[in-house]
Amino acid sequence: MPGWTRSAGVREGRRPAPRWAKAGIKVIIGSRSAERAETAAAELGDGVTGMDNQDTAAMADVVLVAVPWEGHSELLASLRDQLAGKIVIDCVNPLGFDKQGPFALPVEEGSAAQQAEKLLPESRVTAAFHHVSAVHLADLSIPELHTDVLVLGDDREATDLVRALADAVPGMRGVYGGRLRNAHQVEALTANLIAINRRYKAHAGIRITDV
Amino acid sequence: MPGWTRSAGVREGRRPAPRWAKAGIKVIIGSRSAERAETAAAELGDGVTGMDNQDTAAMADVVLVAVPWEGHSELLASLRDQLAGKIVIDCVNPLGFDKQGPFALPVEEGSAAQQAEKLLPESRVTAAFHHVSAVHLADLSIPELHTDVLVLGDDREATDLVRALADAVPGMRGVYGGRLRNAHQVEALTANLIAINRRYKAHAGIRITDV
Repeated sequence: MPGWTRSAGVREGRRPAPRWAKAGIKVIIGSRSAERAETAAAELGDGVTGMDNQDTAAMADVVLVAVPWEGHSELLASLRDQLAGKIVIDCVNPLGFDKQGPFALPVEEGSAAQQAEKLLPESRVTAAFHHVSAVHLADLSIPELHTDVLVLGDDREATDLVRALADAVPGMRGVYGGRLRNAHQVEALTANLIAINRRYKAHAGIRITDV
Repeated sequence: MPGWTRSAGVREGRRPAPRWAKAGIKVIIGSRSAERAETAAAELGDGVTGMDNQDTAAMADVVLVAVPWEGHSELLASLRDQLAGKIVIDCVNPLGFDKQGPFALPVEEGSAAQQAEKLLPESRVTAAFHHVSAVHLADLSIPELHTDVLVLGDDREATDLVRALADAVPGMRGVYGGRLRNAHQVEALTANLIAINRRYKAHAGIRITDV
């Protein structure tokens, strides 16, 4: 019963939830407000349900944390007990923007994923789904997303399961991308992809070659 | 007359020199020792010449800096005058290795490329060619390298020229990848590609999708 947690602030398009639901995976939408989560779930259909963040984290086996960086540490700290023993997928990109465009923010723990690891010592933290185009994810008229998802983590069973969740989305592929200590550059690369999007008027993603 | 500078320590396979030479681009090999450079150039053929680093930097219009991170600042500081006004391509990846594998080293200036920019205030510094498989580059029996080269920099004319140098290698494509302040994660991503190579027994590179 993979589920996922979101806050009200998450960019809607980021979430792979509808594509997972269409692939037959049980999805729970989490939100600070159960009512808002239920509304979002009803819009998605495909058996998706909605609960508040606490219940979502308690019910799900796998939890995708898709929140703005500003609310990352607070949300995770509040879900520590519910997430104990669970596989957590962190896809948060700590980025700033100024007149020159996007840039990577420094993170005391090294990366958002390492911050999650520190805040959730009893969870199995992975990092993935950083680079998936929000627009392409949300546009279900695009049947296949031709992109790779780098999956990072120190727990082989957990990264294998998260890779399988990427593989479950048509056209998408999960590729092991290294240990959690190498998550910073994967998160920060989103700044480069945004710069690419601006230059080329694209929704850029990455593919790993020779794999 | 694009040329490039290397130190004796550079991994041989990293250099695109033979592929540029085959594409009709004039290449000069630089080394601390002119004699060693001449020997390397003679092995390559295709009109490649060899000189010491000072002469190479003075003669070339475009200089690819391909040296170990340990020697990066010292070499660049010694070539400041010769590199004034030149386009410099930094492809250096500041990485460390321990029993858990590769990891990104912290760099005071933010990245190797930003260190180059600081040491070479009169040069036009770009960052590119970080992820090209050393093995595939060196193996000329592989006619096309199916990989993208992210080209970073704040000087549009310089990044366009460096992209063209990537495009000159069959199968390779230069893609603008953002401003120099976003170079760290591109350099550091090499650690993830090395982790991928170890897991999948591959020579991984990247492609940017939707561009």
